[in-house]
Amino acid sequence: MSTVNHQFRLASRPVGVPDRSVWNYTEEPLAEPKDGEVLVKVLYISLDPAMRGWMNEGKSYVPPVGIGEVMRALGAGKVIASKFPGLAAGDFVGGMFGVQEYATVAGKAASKIDSPASQLPVYIGALGMPGMTAYFGLLEVGRPEPGNTVVVSGAAGAVGSIVGQIAKIKGCTVVGIAGGAEKCKYLTEIGFDAAIDYKSEEVYPALRRQCPNGIDVYFDNVGGEILDAALANLALHARVVICGAISQYNNTTPIKGPSNYLSLLVNRASMTGMVVTDYWPRAGEARAAMSPWVKEGKIKTREHIVDGLDTFPETLLMLFTGQNRGKLIIKVAGD
Amino acid sequence: MSTVNHQFRLASRPVGVPDRSVWNYTEEPLAEPKDGEVLVKVLYISLDPAMRGWMNEGKSYVPPVGIGEVMRALGAGKVIASKFPGLAAGDFVGGMFGVQEYATVAGKAASKIDSPASQLPVYIGALGMPGMTAYFGLLEVGRPEPGNTVVVSGAAGAVGSIVGQIAKIKGCTVVGIAGGAEKCKYLTEIGFDAAIDYKSEEVYPALRRQCPNGIDVYFDNVGGEILDAALANLALHARVVICGAISQYNNTTPIKGPSNYLSLLVNRASMTGMVVTDYWPRAGEARAAMSPWVKEGKIKTREHIVDGLDTFPETLLMLFTGQNRGKLIIKVAGD
Repeated sequence: MSTVNHQFRLASRPVGVPDRSVWNYTEEPLAEPKDGEVLVKVLYISLDPAMRGWMNEGKSYVPPVGIGEVMRALGAGKVIASKFPGLAAGDFVGGMFGVQEYATVAGKAASKIDSPASQLPVYIGALGMPGMTAYFGLLEVGRPEPGNTVVVSGAAGAVGSIVGQIAKIKGCTVVGIAGGAEKCKYLTEIGFDAAIDYKSEEVYPALRRQCPNGIDVYFDNVGGEILDAALANLALHARVVICGAISQYNNTTPIKGPSNYLSLLVNRASMTGMVVTDYWPRAGEARAAMSPWVKEGKIKTREHIVDGLDTFPETLLMLFTGQNRGKLIIKVAGD
Repeated sequence: MSTVNHQFRLASRPVGVPDRSVWNYTEEPLAEPKDGEVLVKVLYISLDPAMRGWMNEGKSYVPPVGIGEVMRALGAGKVIASKFPGLAAGDFVGGMFGVQEYATVAGKAASKIDSPASQLPVYIGALGMPGMTAYFGLLEVGRPEPGNTVVVSGAAGAVGSIVGQIAKIKGCTVVGIAGGAEKCKYLTEIGFDAAIDYKSEEVYPALRRQCPNGIDVYFDNVGGEILDAALANLALHARVVICGAISQYNNTTPIKGPSNYLSLLVNRASMTGMVVTDYWPRAGEARAAMSPWVKEGKIKTREHIVDGLDTFPETLLMLFTGQNRGKLIIKVAGD
């Protein structure tokens, strides 16, 4: 067993796109677990758009990552030493393990995963934070009804692709917005009724064409012009779910607010923000619903796995350039 | 009885502030009521910010006023001839009578007002469209709870002043935003806990100071920078009611979208549009609740009455310059 732990720590607050200069790659001795703690060998790290927000100063739904701290990240790994009664060496666990090779955390903060190692990427994707976000954001905030038209942006992403597939299971017509022909082809392959390539067509008229009765539920991951185009196409009593705004996260100028927000008034519609952590206590409920869907192929999952912790600064940027295909994950080590 | 009817008709669609050139002042013979109709002598015309929206081309919650049509407006008047069984000459009625001296309308479209002539201005103010807007917008969309902090913009206006007073009745702390010291003084006189003069102070820090626990319900009549300042001060699970956006109605450039809309995400908050006409079927319920409040002085009303139909083009603009003090009404004729 290694006796050192490598980590990416936040060196400075990024302005715009975070390049390698905002990170310190550090090395320290392994921290032995104290009573109630476990030592986890990190196998997979989940890369999520939310991480960009955690790097900024200021009030948000969680405190920012401090300068000098190990970058916050979800992940999955294997317990290699335990002083916590509920977990034993060899157990697979998920949790907020950070961007590092080993994590010493409170046993309560690690959830046991009863799956083989090969399933860990699905666990941190479709059955992890992105899956929970899609499940609760769509069903609790968007509240789609059978026959509704559901539109999702960032549709080929880890959250968006699940949102669309759950909406199909619930009997909705589903239109995805994504960047590029390849992603759009993927969306129709996994059951979306239509896909709009925002890189090659104007989104407003395309939505008008694909949603002749207007949008009942719009699940927004991107913000910016696409949010505005969707607002201009709402149906009466539409629900807009604000899950993220990846088009705005690296802005060095103020965020572009949605000029068409008065469509909420005209259509008696609502726009509601959601943060998945509020739903952690109900994660079991979502997993119980989604696991059979995944098993039966009603929800198809796709993971984009990049090898090596040291690729972290560049791999993270794939989320913002749209280069990833499916849930973006770093594989830190083999089982 | 006069045999001619004077009217303001929309001559062209305004760009920016609508001056007198967008109106035609016309004269035509009185139209005798047909079966089922009544002829109403208009006594008071209600001037409302929503009228600016009705003058624009394009889809909204009601069709625009057509070029050449009598300008749409609510009002109160007296039936002078009736071929409708439910109404008789001498009855006071309220309805969508337009900007004119006489209206010949379906009897069903005129609601009988059981009040003396002196009370008609209250009927089209606190107990009319602005009152209904305040009542349903605050209670159904804003859903304030006792102890909540409620903020309202355009607070000295016909809707805003009622919103604040209902919120006080419901046990909330109420902060109003208005333009000028005189309006702010009025707000504290009618029971607001605090008033912010957006013309003399920065709204964001003032809200921060006045709402140390954040805003639970924000009732927005104005849009623009004030909406953004409120969004930046939301409490967890806040409800933002979008009732209007008077700061934006005369824009010749695109509407300013709320840059701080991601505060909805951070605070798991919602922003919901409302249109009062949806609540017409429940007008009786609101009037039953509000009439005693008005009678007992728990809701103080103020009407700003301007004499003469011919003042209409200039009187309307008072809404946008903020010159009116209370519900803006044109008195067309004596009883």
